[in-house]
Amino acid sequence: MTFPVIDGGRLLARLDAFAAIGGTPAGGVNRPALSVEDRAARALLAGLGAARGFSVFQDAAANLFLRRAGADNDRPPFLIGSHLDSQPTGGRFDGALGTLAALEVLETLEDNGIVTAGPIELVAWTNEEGSRFSPGAFGSQVHATGAFPSGWQDTLDGNGIRLADELAATLAALPEAIERPLGRPVTGYIELHIEQGPLLERQGALIGVVEGIQGTRWLEVTIAGQVAHAGTTPLAARRDAMAVAAAIIARLQATVMPADADARLTVGRLTLAPGAVNVIPGEVTFSIDLRHPNGDQIDRLETEVAALATEIASSGGCRVSIRRSMDVAPARFDDRLIDIVQGAAEKRAFPSRRMFSGAFHDALFMARLGPAAMIFVPCRDGLSHNETEFVEPHQVIAGAQVLCDATLEAMRVFQSR
Amino acid sequence: MTFPVIDGGRLLARLDAFAAIGGTPAGGVNRPALSVEDRAARALLAGLGAARGFSVFQDAAANLFLRRAGADNDRPPFLIGSHLDSQPTGGRFDGALGTLAALEVLETLEDNGIVTAGPIELVAWTNEEGSRFSPGAFGSQVHATGAFPSGWQDTLDGNGIRLADELAATLAALPEAIERPLGRPVTGYIELHIEQGPLLERQGALIGVVEGIQGTRWLEVTIAGQVAHAGTTPLAARRDAMAVAAAIIARLQATVMPADADARLTVGRLTLAPGAVNVIPGEVTFSIDLRHPNGDQIDRLETEVAALATEIASSGGCRVSIRRSMDVAPARFDDRLIDIVQGAAEKRAFPSRRMFSGAFHDALFMARLGPAAMIFVPCRDGLSHNETEFVEPHQVIAGAQVLCDATLEAMRVFQSR
Repeated sequence: MTFPVIDGGRLLARLDAFAAIGGTPAGGVNRPALSVEDRAARALLAGLGAARGFSVFQDAAANLFLRRAGADNDRPPFLIGSHLDSQPTGGRFDGALGTLAALEVLETLEDNGIVTAGPIELVAWTNEEGSRFSPGAFGSQVHATGAFPSGWQDTLDGNGIRLADELAATLAALPEAIERPLGRPVTGYIELHIEQGPLLERQGALIGVVEGIQGTRWLEVTIAGQVAHAGTTPLAARRDAMAVAAAIIARLQATVMPADADARLTVGRLTLAPGAVNVIPGEVTFSIDLRHPNGDQIDRLETEVAALATEIASSGGCRVSIRRSMDVAPARFDDRLIDIVQGAAEKRAFPSRRMFSGAFHDALFMARLGPAAMIFVPCRDGLSHNETEFVEPHQVIAGAQVLCDATLEAMRVFQSR
Repeated sequence: MTFPVIDGGRLLARLDAFAAIGGTPAGGVNRPALSVEDRAARALLAGLGAARGFSVFQDAAANLFLRRAGADNDRPPFLIGSHLDSQPTGGRFDGALGTLAALEVLETLEDNGIVTAGPIELVAWTNEEGSRFSPGAFGSQVHATGAFPSGWQDTLDGNGIRLADELAATLAALPEAIERPLGRPVTGYIELHIEQGPLLERQGALIGVVEGIQGTRWLEVTIAGQVAHAGTTPLAARRDAMAVAAAIIARLQATVMPADADARLTVGRLTLAPGAVNVIPGEVTFSIDLRHPNGDQIDRLETEVAALATEIASSGGCRVSIRRSMDVAPARFDDRLIDIVQGAAEKRAFPSRRMFSGAFHDALFMARLGPAAMIFVPCRDGLSHNETEFVEPHQVIAGAQVLCDATLEAMRVFQSR
């Protein structure tokens, strides 16, 4: 089997063209899910695919598919892709890279007249970011589970616009796409994405061979104390919810991550009441984002958090309550596909490292439907969800090349008889 | 000299009558400064005074005075009083007790035909609370300094209403009051107030002999780190502003107050950005309310805060900046007046203790104009700025009796030839 070389210039030009849709003055992208800009990007992608003879489909979640036929089109397709929506002040590469690299793979196969055993499909998942309509990874979750979450229709964006209305308008904006049912069988799925972290860059690696996506559990911790006057209340009479919250957060930060290099603990939100300079807070609520590649370790960390919070709150005269607001189990990718990605990187002599993904991706849900894997490329300073997000051209091209090579090798392994 | 017994029943009835003006269903009071309710309370007070033959005055800050004439009315008056405005969910006693006890003193002198050497004036200061228009102690500050703070006219309340407009309307609502200049000389000032803290109640004392008001310094601490992804950023790459803020607050709470029983340190406000569960905060701003009876110790505490914050921020890869947002030096009351208050409590065999005030009061500014002192009575559970604020009837009466006795004794000491 031949492994053709992709057209890096074409891919970079496509990234520029899509970055202009919702492009911001600072060089970033504002292309919220299901917005007018998102529809424009979908229409451009569909048109580029149709021009090369690929069939265009969309399902009820507005996931967009471009199919390049194989020798036997009754075989389940092999999927490659990512998403086209962005954060409000997002970058040019998050999602777009994986989607347009998938288009580059299909076009490279077309350019080289390569006939695959079964079809290969590009997929652009709907609303991966979740920043306009919560939660994210909406399209891939609906596709993989075959069902919409209950009450999803009435989810509102910040302007009070309904998700169901925007989804219907987005579907209607692409009448040339053929309707397709949710959750069709797949041969496998590979997603190329920027790392969104600093590890590859720090280690001089070009390709991240992603073994899975770490699990995430969100806790909401509420400390209940007693509102009192800052000037008149002596230490012994204080039940200061903020002092207790600070002690809990400080202790967790000093212990959890230093003791376990795979653990991540972040307090990203904190609110207190009543919130006056001269009033001892009576209530503090804060979030904990806990992540670990190992689900058992997430359970252990939650137990540690609860024990520590209870002990500190009690000694500070406060009560604590903790509830889970989200829980996503770790995903473990397919060993054969992981090895195929690694082999593809090695064959091109691209320095690579195996790693877990710290962020969610649509591959999290696709791993429930069939064999899945991901390829990471570095992003400058590990920055993403940021208008200054940047990937060097040679890194873009290397990632797309590995996607192309790994897809062809996966077709050989998974679709040959 | 005779020391007449006040009419406790009359005073309690007056407290009920004023609590009905802006009274809340939960038994508290909502009488914002310069509001319609505040004007109604002022009108009732002025009417009660006029009915007893007291002269009614107001100055340009709408401070309201009721003068009971003495033998020689060219002498500077001795002032007693407090304020009539309340917090939005305030109690029945904060301010009203000291104001109506002062009225009770004037009426008791009138009932008993006692002629004092010079005049005694009740004063009801404007906008002590500062919760509608910031800052508080507005009227006493303007009166004592003889000047309005710059830009005060355009101070807005939460509904965009201008302080200057409400002040003018309040002055106009009491046309029978005689205009009086700011900052007239006084013989002295005594203010009765609820403690707003737990010390008297805990020690079974009926009277707090207040030696001064502790100083207050407000600091605004800003921690600047780096926004980053909660899932992808390993510990070594984090510059987590919230982790740093928590470490600083936890360390301050663990050290400052345990080491110095007179110190008070409170973090009552904290905001962070961007404020998403899965984003490491790049910036946290929090307030520190520092109090101490000794101004040098406030300087020492500020130095400690700055050193600690700088050290912890630096080790967490963050920058820290600190600015003072308020600074009020401690007030030390007049030793002769303090002794007079103590003597008055002892003569009635009321258990008393000497103490500093943890809260601001109008006496803070009056102490700059002349000899000043305060009398505290307990409030249940130390609670105030709260609709459930409560003072036992015998505590109300004891406080007013000490105010009456101390005022007469002060007239003897300060106004006799």
